[in-house]
Amino acid sequence: MAPEAGPLLSKIQFPADLKKLQEEDLPQLCQELRDFIIEVISANPGHLGASLGAVELAVAIHYVFDTPFDKLIWDVGHQAYAHKILTGRKDQFHTNRKLKGLSGFPKMTESEYDAFGTGHSSTSISAALGMAVASALNDNNGRQHIAVIGDGSMTGGMAMEALNNAGVSNANLLVILNDNQIAIDRNVGAMKDYLVDITTSRSYNRFRNFIWKMMGGDTRYGANSRAIVKQFGNAVKSTISRKSNLFEAFRFRYFGPTDGHDVIHLVKLLRDLKRIDGPKLLHVVTKKGKGLESAENEPTTYHSPGVFDKKTGEIKKSDCSEKLAPKFQHVFGKTIIELAKENDRIVGITPAMPTGSSLNMMMSVMPERAFDVGIAEQHAVTFAAGLATQGMIPFCNIYSSFMQRAYDQVIHDVALQNLPVIFCLDRGGIVGEDGATHHGVFDLAYFRAIPNITIASPLNEQEMRNMMYTAQLDGNGTFSIRYPRGRGVMPEWKTPFEKLEIGKGIEIRRGKDIAIVSIGPVGNTAMEAAVELEKENVSVAVYNMRFLKPIDEELLHQVFKQFDRILTLEDGTIHGGLGSAVIEFKNDHQYNSRVARLGIPDRFIEHGTPEELYRICGIDKDGIMASTQKMLKQ
Amino acid sequence: MAPEAGPLLSKIQFPADLKKLQEEDLPQLCQELRDFIIEVISANPGHLGASLGAVELAVAIHYVFDTPFDKLIWDVGHQAYAHKILTGRKDQFHTNRKLKGLSGFPKMTESEYDAFGTGHSSTSISAALGMAVASALNDNNGRQHIAVIGDGSMTGGMAMEALNNAGVSNANLLVILNDNQIAIDRNVGAMKDYLVDITTSRSYNRFRNFIWKMMGGDTRYGANSRAIVKQFGNAVKSTISRKSNLFEAFRFRYFGPTDGHDVIHLVKLLRDLKRIDGPKLLHVVTKKGKGLESAENEPTTYHSPGVFDKKTGEIKKSDCSEKLAPKFQHVFGKTIIELAKENDRIVGITPAMPTGSSLNMMMSVMPERAFDVGIAEQHAVTFAAGLATQGMIPFCNIYSSFMQRAYDQVIHDVALQNLPVIFCLDRGGIVGEDGATHHGVFDLAYFRAIPNITIASPLNEQEMRNMMYTAQLDGNGTFSIRYPRGRGVMPEWKTPFEKLEIGKGIEIRRGKDIAIVSIGPVGNTAMEAAVELEKENVSVAVYNMRFLKPIDEELLHQVFKQFDRILTLEDGTIHGGLGSAVIEFKNDHQYNSRVARLGIPDRFIEHGTPEELYRICGIDKDGIMASTQKMLKQ
Repeated sequence: MAPEAGPLLSKIQFPADLKKLQEEDLPQLCQELRDFIIEVISANPGHLGASLGAVELAVAIHYVFDTPFDKLIWDVGHQAYAHKILTGRKDQFHTNRKLKGLSGFPKMTESEYDAFGTGHSSTSISAALGMAVASALNDNNGRQHIAVIGDGSMTGGMAMEALNNAGVSNANLLVILNDNQIAIDRNVGAMKDYLVDITTSRSYNRFRNFIWKMMGGDTRYGANSRAIVKQFGNAVKSTISRKSNLFEAFRFRYFGPTDGHDVIHLVKLLRDLKRIDGPKLLHVVTKKGKGLESAENEPTTYHSPGVFDKKTGEIKKSDCSEKLAPKFQHVFGKTIIELAKENDRIVGITPAMPTGSSLNMMMSVMPERAFDVGIAEQHAVTFAAGLATQGMIPFCNIYSSFMQRAYDQVIHDVALQNLPVIFCLDRGGIVGEDGATHHGVFDLAYFRAIPNITIASPLNEQEMRNMMYTAQLDGNGTFSIRYPRGRGVMPEWKTPFEKLEIGKGIEIRRGKDIAIVSIGPVGNTAMEAAVELEKENVSVAVYNMRFLKPIDEELLHQVFKQFDRILTLEDGTIHGGLGSAVIEFKNDHQYNSRVARLGIPDRFIEHGTPEELYRICGIDKDGIMASTQKMLKQ
Repeated sequence: MAPEAGPLLSKIQFPADLKKLQEEDLPQLCQELRDFIIEVISANPGHLGASLGAVELAVAIHYVFDTPFDKLIWDVGHQAYAHKILTGRKDQFHTNRKLKGLSGFPKMTESEYDAFGTGHSSTSISAALGMAVASALNDNNGRQHIAVIGDGSMTGGMAMEALNNAGVSNANLLVILNDNQIAIDRNVGAMKDYLVDITTSRSYNRFRNFIWKMMGGDTRYGANSRAIVKQFGNAVKSTISRKSNLFEAFRFRYFGPTDGHDVIHLVKLLRDLKRIDGPKLLHVVTKKGKGLESAENEPTTYHSPGVFDKKTGEIKKSDCSEKLAPKFQHVFGKTIIELAKENDRIVGITPAMPTGSSLNMMMSVMPERAFDVGIAEQHAVTFAAGLATQGMIPFCNIYSSFMQRAYDQVIHDVALQNLPVIFCLDRGGIVGEDGATHHGVFDLAYFRAIPNITIASPLNEQEMRNMMYTAQLDGNGTFSIRYPRGRGVMPEWKTPFEKLEIGKGIEIRRGKDIAIVSIGPVGNTAMEAAVELEKENVSVAVYNMRFLKPIDEELLHQVFKQFDRILTLEDGTIHGGLGSAVIEFKNDHQYNSRVARLGIPDRFIEHGTPEELYRICGIDKDGIMASTQKMLKQ
C-alpha cells in the first residue's frame, strides 16, 4: 500500500503540479520526498542512498524543464526514485522492484518521462547526444536534453567516448555531473582526485575569475599588471579560457561546482543554463544518503540496505536461528585470500564492485594485491591480461551482465593471447529484483563461442572452491567460473581444496527413467525435483556437468547410451549454452534420445524475486517436475 | 625474398646491434628503415603510413630502453613495422601478413620483443599498466613499461579507463602519445582539437614556463609582479601546476609536444624520462606516411595502399578488363544514400571507419546526417539508440570483430529497449591478411543469444540492398545485416528495392541427394560446389536462409522432410551460429536426418589470404565438395 505523502507532495502527480509551487516551497517538498522514499524503501528494499542524494536535482530539473518534451536521462538509474515519484508513479512506488510493479530503473515502457532505459553505467551522455542530434535534425531546436551522471559513471570509458564526440557537436546537451565521490563503493581513480581538488579548493574558479578580471583591465594592480597581462597574451587566453579544465578540454562549457542540495540555487542555475546552447556540464556536489544520518555515514551499506528502521536507519538483520549457507560472493572473497596466501602470484581485480564481489576482504588484508580499477570492465580485463603476461594469476571478478562490456577484451586480449586470467562471473543467471538489465543470462552462450577458454560453473560452495583452486594451478590457460547472486547450499562450506579434472562432470543422482544434465547451482533444484518425483515413482538421474567447455563427452556418451529422455538445465538462455552444446553432441554422435532444453527463454525477463522468475522460466522445482513428466509422457 | 638493406640496417638484427651505433648515425638508420619498409610494402601490401610515421620512435625506444626486458606495447600495431625489423625479423619481413609468415601486428608467440599482442585499438595502456603493477609486485623495479598509442586510439573509452586507473598508481609507466591527427581516416572529436591546440600554439608550455619563472621570483617585472603572484597564491599552484592539462587531470606527468621525427632529440628525451618514476605521458607529433610524399599528402589512401610504385608512390590499379562485382562496403555506402534520399529519418554512423565502411560517401553528400563518432564502438551504438528513441532510423556500421566492443550496448541499450537501430556488420567472417584479431567469426553466435533482434546476412549485392531496404521499413525493430570484406558476385548490382519477408529463406538450387543450408555469401561457394558435384552425378540442393533469427522453420521442415543428409554452412564459428540453430530445430522437432556443420572451427584462425583460410577451414569449394561426398558415403 502506498504510504501517505506530506502536504505538498500529496498534491503532486506530475511535473505540471510541481510547477505550481512557489520556489520557496521547494525545500519542504524535498523533505517530503525524502520522507516518502525512506518510508517506502525502509519496508520494501531498494536503492536508497543514491536516490536520497538526488532529490533536489530531480525537483529542480522537473521544476525548470519541460519534461517529457525535454529529454531527461538518469545514468544507471539508481538515483531516479524522486523522479519516478514526481512523474505519475507516486501511488505505485511501493511496488518498486516487485513482479509486475515499477522497475527499479528508468524504463521507457513504464513512463514517457523515462526518456531512456538505464541500468548499466555510463550510457546517458551517448543516448542524450543521440536525442539532441535528432532534435537538431527535426528542427525541434527548443528541446532540451539532460543527462544526469555520477562521478563513478563518468569514469566508464563510454562516457568519455561520448564527451569526446559531443564536444565537437553543437548539440543542445546539458550533462549534470552528480558528484558524491561514491559509486556503490567509494569511487576510485585519477578523475575522482581531480574532482575533489576542483571541488574543495575552488581554486580553479577563483583563479579563472582573477585572470578574467585582469584581462579586463582591472587597474587595482596598476600599470605593471597590464604589462604582465600583455606578456600572458594569447597564451593565457587560449590556455586558461578554454583548456584549463578536464571537461573544457573536451570542449564542454563547465559550470560549478555547486551545492546539489540547495534546491533554490539549483533552480536558478538550471534556468540560466537553459539559455546557453551547445554542450555544457554542470558539476553538482551531493551527499549520498542525504537526510538519513546512517546513510550519510555509511554510503556503501546504505546503497541498497534491505529492510531498515525508517527513524533510526537501523538495518533489520535477517533471522539467523538457522545457520545459513554463505553467499557465493563470500565464498569467492574468502577463498581467494586462502589461495593468495599460498600462491603469491595471485592477484584480485574488480571494476568498482569490491563490496558486491566481496573482493573488499582481500583489499583489506592484502591491499597491494587486490585492485579496484573503477567502473571500467574493459580496462579490468586487459589490465588482468597485462598482469598475466608477467606470470601473475589474476582473478578478474565481473558480474555476468557487466562482462558483456568486456567481451572483446576477453576474446582479443586474453583468450587469443592464451593468458591464464581467471574470470569470476558473479551474478550469473537470474538476479531477481534488478531485472532485465542485470540478469546474467547470456554469458554461457557468448563465452562458449570463444576458442581457448575453459568455462566452469559450480553446483555448490565446495565445487566453487575447488574450481578456484584448480583454475590457479599452472597450465590451465584462460578460465571462467560462473556463479549466481545469493546463497549456496552448504552452511559448512569451508572444505579442503581438491583439484578437479578439467572438462569432467559427475553423476550426482542415479536414476533410470530420465536424465537431467545440468550446470551450476540450478542442479540443486534438479535434485529437489528428482526427490519429489521419486515419490511419484519416477526415477530421475541428475548429472552435474561442472564444465560447459570443454564438455565431458565421455559422460555424455554414457547418458545418451543409457537414456532415451534427457533434459538439459541451465540458468541461462536456451540459445547457445549448455542445451545447445548437448544437442550438438547428440547430433555429431548421431544419438536419437529426445532432448528438451530448460533455461531462460529467448526474451528479456523482467524483475521479480528469483523464485518468481524461475517459476516463470519453468526452471523452479515445479517447472522441472512438470517438464520431466511431460517428456516421459511423450 | 628479403630486399637488401642499407649499410647501417644491414648490420642490425637485434636492438643490441642498434645500440652499437653512434647517436649521429640514427637519422641515416631511420632513412634506411623507411627505404626498406617502402621497398617491401610496395610489393607486398601492408599498413604503410602508420609505420613510416613511427620509424624514429621505434629506433629511439630500442636505442634507449632495454627491450625485451623493458616492456614495449604498440597500440593497434599498424605502426610496428620498424619495431619488427629491428627485433630479429628483418629477413622475414617480406612474409608480412602472408600465411605462416609474420603477422601484420605484434604477436607474443612471434617474438619476445612483442610484449603484448595487439590489433584492436586502445588496449596498450591497460596492458602496460598490468605489466608495471606486476613488476612492482615482483620487485623488478628497474623494469620500464612503455605504451605507444595514437591520438585516435586515445579517444577509445578503454584508454581513458586505463588513464584514470593508472593515474592513481605509482606504476612505472610511460605512455607515448603518437599524435598524427589521423587514425585511418582523419581523427575526430574534441580531444583531437585539444591536441591541435596544445601542439600548434604551444601556449600551454610557454604559459607554464612563464608562470613558473614568476613564481620563482623573477624580478624583471618588479615588485608589483610579486604582489600579483601572491594573489595567485595556491590557486595558481594547484591549478596551473597540476591540472591545466587534460593528461595532468588524470595525474600523469605531461611532457611535450615534441617533434617525433627528430630521432636524436627523442633519444635525449627518452633518456630523461627513464629516470622519472610514476605514470608519465610524452606527447610526440608525427606525420603519417613520413618520407613518402604521396603518403604524407593522402594519409587515408596510404594507410594500407596495396601495391604501389616505391619511387613515385603511384598505386597500381588492379586489372579492370573484366567488370568486377562491387565491394559489399560500396553497396552499403551507395545504398544508404539512395534510401536516405527517400526516407529523411535515416542517418548513418561509423566509429572511425568512414572509408573502410564507405560511409564517407554519405558524409560527403549529406554531412548533417552521417556521423563519424571516433574510435568509440560503445558510444556509437548507444548514440544510435538515442537517435532511434526520437524516431530516427540509424544505420550503425561496425566491423564484426569491433562489434565485440559494443556487445553490452547492443543488448542493453538497443535490443532490450526495442529500438529500430540497424546494425551493419561489415567484415563478417574471415578477413584474410589482418588475421586472428580481425576475423569477424563470432557475431552470428553472440548475436543469436540476444532476444528481440533480427539477424540477416545477404547472399549477394541484391539481397544486401533488399535487406537494407527492408530493415528501414517501420516496425522492424532491432535489425542486423552481416556481410563480408571484399567483393560480391553481381557486377550489375543496382537492382530495384524489394521488401523481403523477415525470417524467410529460399531454395536457390534444387537437388535430391543432399541439402546445403547456408547463410551469407558463402552460399555462392556452395553453389559452385553443387555445380561441380552435378558433374559427378551428385545432386545438391542449396538453401539460402537469409535470416539466422528468426529462422525459417517452414523451410527447415521442408528440408528435413526431404533430405536425410544436410550440411549447414556459415562463415562463422560452428558453436552457436547457424549450425547450432539448425540442430536445435532438428532436435526440437525430432527429425533424424544427419546434419554436419561447416564453418569456422573452434580455434583462432591466423592470417593468410581469404582463399587459403577458407581452405584451411574446409569451407572453400573443394572443402564443401569433400564434406558433401563424405556425408553421402556415411
